[in-house]
Amino acid sequence: MDTKPVNSVIQERLTLLRKRMHEKGVDYYMIPTADFHNSEYVSDYFKVREYFSNFTGSNGTLLVWQEGAGLWTDGRYFIQAERELSGTGITLFRMQTEGVPDIGAFLAEQMADGQTLGFDGRVISASEGRRYEKKMESANKQIRFAYGEDLADVIWENRPTFPAGRVWVVPDELAGASVAEKLSGVRAKLSENGAESLFLTKLDDLMWLFNIRGCDVECNPVAMCYGYITQNEAVIFIQKRVLEEHVVSYFENNGIRVEEYEEVTSYLEAIIPGQKILLDLRHCSYGFAKLLADKHTIIEKQNPTELLKAVKNATELSNMRKIYLKDSVAVTKFIYWLKTSMKKLADGEIVDGMQTITELSAAAKLEEFRRGIPEFLDLSFPTIAGYGANAAMMHYEATEESHAVLKPEGFLLVDSGGQYLGGTTDVTRTIALGPVTEEQKLHYTKVAQGMLQMTHAKWLYGCTGRNLDILARKPLWEIGLDYRCGTGHGVGYILNVHEGPQSLRWRYVEGVGEAVLEAGMDVTNEPGVYIEGSHGIRTENVMVVCNLEKNEYGQFMGFETLTWVPLDMEAIDEKYLSEDAKKMLTVYQQQVFEKISPYLTEEEKQWLKEETNA
Amino acid sequence: MDTKPVNSVIQERLTLLRKRMHEKGVDYYMIPTADFHNSEYVSDYFKVREYFSNFTGSNGTLLVWQEGAGLWTDGRYFIQAERELSGTGITLFRMQTEGVPDIGAFLAEQMADGQTLGFDGRVISASEGRRYEKKMESANKQIRFAYGEDLADVIWENRPTFPAGRVWVVPDELAGASVAEKLSGVRAKLSENGAESLFLTKLDDLMWLFNIRGCDVECNPVAMCYGYITQNEAVIFIQKRVLEEHVVSYFENNGIRVEEYEEVTSYLEAIIPGQKILLDLRHCSYGFAKLLADKHTIIEKQNPTELLKAVKNATELSNMRKIYLKDSVAVTKFIYWLKTSMKKLADGEIVDGMQTITELSAAAKLEEFRRGIPEFLDLSFPTIAGYGANAAMMHYEATEESHAVLKPEGFLLVDSGGQYLGGTTDVTRTIALGPVTEEQKLHYTKVAQGMLQMTHAKWLYGCTGRNLDILARKPLWEIGLDYRCGTGHGVGYILNVHEGPQSLRWRYVEGVGEAVLEAGMDVTNEPGVYIEGSHGIRTENVMVVCNLEKNEYGQFMGFETLTWVPLDMEAIDEKYLSEDAKKMLTVYQQQVFEKISPYLTEEEKQWLKEETNA
Repeated sequence: MDTKPVNSVIQERLTLLRKRMHEKGVDYYMIPTADFHNSEYVSDYFKVREYFSNFTGSNGTLLVWQEGAGLWTDGRYFIQAERELSGTGITLFRMQTEGVPDIGAFLAEQMADGQTLGFDGRVISASEGRRYEKKMESANKQIRFAYGEDLADVIWENRPTFPAGRVWVVPDELAGASVAEKLSGVRAKLSENGAESLFLTKLDDLMWLFNIRGCDVECNPVAMCYGYITQNEAVIFIQKRVLEEHVVSYFENNGIRVEEYEEVTSYLEAIIPGQKILLDLRHCSYGFAKLLADKHTIIEKQNPTELLKAVKNATELSNMRKIYLKDSVAVTKFIYWLKTSMKKLADGEIVDGMQTITELSAAAKLEEFRRGIPEFLDLSFPTIAGYGANAAMMHYEATEESHAVLKPEGFLLVDSGGQYLGGTTDVTRTIALGPVTEEQKLHYTKVAQGMLQMTHAKWLYGCTGRNLDILARKPLWEIGLDYRCGTGHGVGYILNVHEGPQSLRWRYVEGVGEAVLEAGMDVTNEPGVYIEGSHGIRTENVMVVCNLEKNEYGQFMGFETLTWVPLDMEAIDEKYLSEDAKKMLTVYQQQVFEKISPYLTEEEKQWLKEETNA
Repeated sequence: MDTKPVNSVIQERLTLLRKRMHEKGVDYYMIPTADFHNSEYVSDYFKVREYFSNFTGSNGTLLVWQEGAGLWTDGRYFIQAERELSGTGITLFRMQTEGVPDIGAFLAEQMADGQTLGFDGRVISASEGRRYEKKMESANKQIRFAYGEDLADVIWENRPTFPAGRVWVVPDELAGASVAEKLSGVRAKLSENGAESLFLTKLDDLMWLFNIRGCDVECNPVAMCYGYITQNEAVIFIQKRVLEEHVVSYFENNGIRVEEYEEVTSYLEAIIPGQKILLDLRHCSYGFAKLLADKHTIIEKQNPTELLKAVKNATELSNMRKIYLKDSVAVTKFIYWLKTSMKKLADGEIVDGMQTITELSAAAKLEEFRRGIPEFLDLSFPTIAGYGANAAMMHYEATEESHAVLKPEGFLLVDSGGQYLGGTTDVTRTIALGPVTEEQKLHYTKVAQGMLQMTHAKWLYGCTGRNLDILARKPLWEIGLDYRCGTGHGVGYILNVHEGPQSLRWRYVEGVGEAVLEAGMDVTNEPGVYIEGSHGIRTENVMVVCNLEKNEYGQFMGFETLTWVPLDMEAIDEKYLSEDAKKMLTVYQQQVFEKISPYLTEEEKQWLKEETNA
C-alpha cells in the first residue's frame, strides 16, 4: 500500500495536459528545462517542467503520455527528485544508471508506428531534436513530430510574465572592442566557412557581439533577443518596449537594425530562399532550424562568436585583473570575519547581532563585502555555502526552510562570485571553522596540490583541456579519489559564469570537438573531494592562458592567476605535499599577501601574514 | 649555374613514365610508398617511388607530370631527400612547412578541369583517395581519377619479385586463443555494427586472426593475404604455392577456405550484391573500396580485429613477461660489454678482434646477444645505433658507406628489438661511453624523469593516451624542450613493432578518434631530447595497461613494466630530479637488479650492482 500523500495539484495539471494532448492528437509530450535560446539557466517564465512535475532541479525532462509520466534527471538530483515527485504519479528515471533507458531509447521502445511526439519546438535544440529523429529512424519507427505549439501555455494559470528587463550598453572602453570590430570579426569567420549569414540565438554571444547586457535570467546579465548577421546588415530582434532611448540611439548609430523580438519568425520566413546560413545546432531551436533548412543551405558550425568571445581582449584582461583583486579582497575579508566570528561565538559573544552563523547568514555576509565594491552589479550565481556533509553535494543550495548552523569544527565550502563593471568572478574556498580530521586534512592538502600543479602547467601550443586535466586530478587519483566532474570551465566577461568552448576535463567523448587553449582564454581550476554524508572540499581559482617563450619547438603556454585568496593552512598538512607542491604553496601564499594586504585592516593584515607565512 | 651532376638514370626512368602517362591520357601520376595493404613498411617489390626518384626514406609520395615532378616527405627526411633527389630534376616539397602546399592542395591548384589524375588504385588507401576527391570537389575542379593500372610496372626492369615467403602456424598454446575463438569475437563485432561481412586487408590483423605468420616484409612477420569473413565462412586469399602441407591442413581443419591471392578481385566481384560489408577505409585500398561500394552497403568502421588484437590475452602477456626479461638481459649484457670495451680500447687493447667499435659493429654485437636467446626469430626492426650527433636524427640508420666510429665520450643511442616465439620487443637506451657534458646530463635526467613519471601513472578507466602524455613530457616542456613525436605506440605480439589503436601522444586532431586504454594493451614509453648537430637521447620501456583498485569512482588503471634494463647513472645528475622521481629511479634500478642479475656473469652482476645502487 502506497502511504505517500497524493500531490493532487500536480495530478490535476497533468490531467489537463493529457486532455489537451488528446485534443491535439499528441501521444507523448516532452517538456525539457530550457528557454527559446537553450540557456543553461532559465527565467521563471520557462519553468514549465517544474509547473507540471513539482521538480525544481536545474536539469530534467518531463515526458507525459495518457497512461503515465516520467521525469529524467541526473545524479546530482536523484534524492531531491524522489522527494519532490512524491505523490505526483510521475516515475523517476535516473539518468546514466545501469538498466535505465535514456529518454530517446524509452520513446523508441514505447512509441508505435503512426503515433505523435509533441514538444514546443522553441525549447528543444536542433541537435537534440535530431537525436530523437535518428533514434526513431534506427528503431524503424514511423513517428510524427508535432513541435508547433506549447501545449502548456493555456493550462498554466498565473504563468510568470515573459522576462523583459532593462538593457544597458557596455561602453567601448569597458568592452575593449566596438560592435563594428566584432561584427567584422564575425563576418570574416562567415566568409571562411562559406556562409552568407548567421542566425545567432545564444544570448551571451548576442550580448558580447552587440556590446549590451540585460537581466532576463537570474545572475546572467542577458536580454532575450536574436540576431541575424549578413555581410552588409546586422539585425537584432529584441523587445522594443524595454529599450531606453539612448539604447535605441546606440543601435542606430552602430547601424544595427532593431526588430521586435516576436517578429523573428516572420522575418526568417521572409528571407529570400537559397541563402547559406551558418547555424549552431546546439543552440538554435529545433523549430527555427527546421524553418530555415526548408528553404536554405544550413552550414552546421559552432557560432563564430563563441571562440571570439572566449579569448578576452587586452582591455577585458586588464579590467579583470583589477576586479579579481577587489573580489579576492572581499573573500579574504569574509574568511577573516568568519574565522574570528566562530571563535567569538564559541566564547559566547554575539557577532553582528547574531548568536549563530548559518550557511545563509554567512553567504549574506560575503555578499555584503562584495556589495562594498563600487563596480559591483550582482552575484554571478547563487552562492553555494555548504557546511559539513552539505558540501558533499556539488550543487547544494541552502534555503530558508533547510540550512545548517555552523559549528566551530569541520569545513564550510563557499563557492561564489560577482558580476562587476569589469568582469565576472568565480571563486571557491573551503574554510576550516575549527578542528578538522586527519582524513579531511589529507583531502584538503591533495586538492590544494592539484590546484597548484594545474596553476604551474606549462605546455606547447595546441593542447586542449584534456591534455592538462590530469595535472590537477593526479594527487587525488593517486589515493583512489576523484571529483566526478571537470576541473574547470570558461568564465564570461560581465556575462555568464559558465562559457565555452574552453574547459579543463578529461573524459573522451567520441565525435565531440575540443578547444585548443588560446592566449587570453580564462578558465577555472577547481579540483575537489566530495565524501557523501561527511564533507566536501573544493578550491577554485580563475586563471588566464598566456604565451610563454617561443622557440624551435613552438609556442610555450602557461597560466596567469587572477584569484588571490589564501589557502587555509589550518587544513594543510605538509607531510602530504610533494617538495614541488610545498614550494608552489609558499609562493602562492606570499603572492596573496603582497597583493591583498594593502587593502586590509591592521588586524586582517596581521592574520593574513600568519596564514601565509609572509 | 647548377653544378650538381645530373642523375640521368632517374631522368630516363621519368621520361619513360611520362611517355606512358601521355599514352594513357594521364596528366598527373602519383606514386606513394605503400603496398596493396597500406603497410607501414613495404617489401622491395613495392619500392616504386624509390625506383623513380632515388629517395629511400620510409615516407614520401612522388608526383609526376609532363613538365616536372615533386616529392613530398616529412621533417625526418628533409636533409636526406635533398641529397638523394639531387640531379633528378624532382622538386622537394617539405611537408608541414609554412608556405608548402600538401599534395592535395597542390593538385587542386595545378590541375585543370577535364584533366586526369592517375595512380595504382591498389596502393592508395580508400580514405586517402577520398581526401583527394573531396579536395577536388571543394576546389570545384572536374578531375577524372584513373586508378586501374600500375603504369610503372612495364617500365621497371628487373623489378624484385613479389614477396612470397614461408608461412607458419602459431600454435594455440603460444597464441592463447584459437582461430575459432577469434573468429567468433570478430563475428560478434560484425553483428554489433550491423555488418554481414568483413573484407580484411591489413596484414598484421590477418596474421592475428588466422594465427599464422609470414616473412614478406623485413622485420614484420606477415604474409601477403586478404580475408573475407561472414557469419558462416572465413576465406583467406594467399599465394598457395608458399603453403606447406601442414599449413594447408591447418586451414582445412579450422574451416578456413583457401583461395589464391590473385583471385581476390574476381571473388569480390562475384559476391551477391546488397551485402552490408564492414570496411576500414584507412587500410583498404581505394580500388577495392570502389569495387565494393558499387554493389554493396559499406559500413565504414575500424577493423574489429584491431582492438581485439591490441588487448593481449593472458597467455600472450605471460609469454611477453618471460621474453622481455630475456631481451632485457641481452641488452644489459650488451651495455656492460660496450662500456667495458670502450675502456679497453682506450687503454689500447683489442676487443673481439676489433681496434674500434662502430655504430654497425655495436649493433651487430647486440644482435649476437639476442641470437643467443632460444626463442629468437629475427629483429623487430633494423637497429638504430646512433653515436653523438647522429642520434639527433630520430630514424637514423647507419650504413656500410656512412657510419660513425665510437669514441670514449658522449652518448650512443641504441633503439632495437627482437621477434621471439613469445613476443616482440622494443627498447631504447642511451649509453654514456665516457664523459658527458652538463647539458647532456640535464637532458638525460629529464628524459628519465619523464619516462619514470609515465611508468607510475594512475588513472580512472576511460583515459586515452592524450590524457597521459603530459606526464612524460612535463619535465622537458618545463625547460622549453620537446621531442616532436608521440610518447608511445602499441607493440604487436610476434608481429609488427608498431600497432594501434592505443598510443601515448598529445596533439588534438579534429575528427580523429582515440582509443581508451584497456587492461592488456601494451604501449611504449619513450620520451627523448634531440639537439641537431649535438646529441640525441631516448629512453624507452614497454609497459602493459593493468587494472588497479575499483571503487565508487570507477576502475583505476596503471602500467606494469616489461622492460628491465638499467638507466645510466653516469648520465644522471640527481640535482635535476624531483624527490618523487628520485624514489622512482631507485625503485626501478633495484627492480632491474633483482630481475636481471640471476642471468649475469659475476663481473656483469658486480657492475650492475654498482650501476643500480642495489
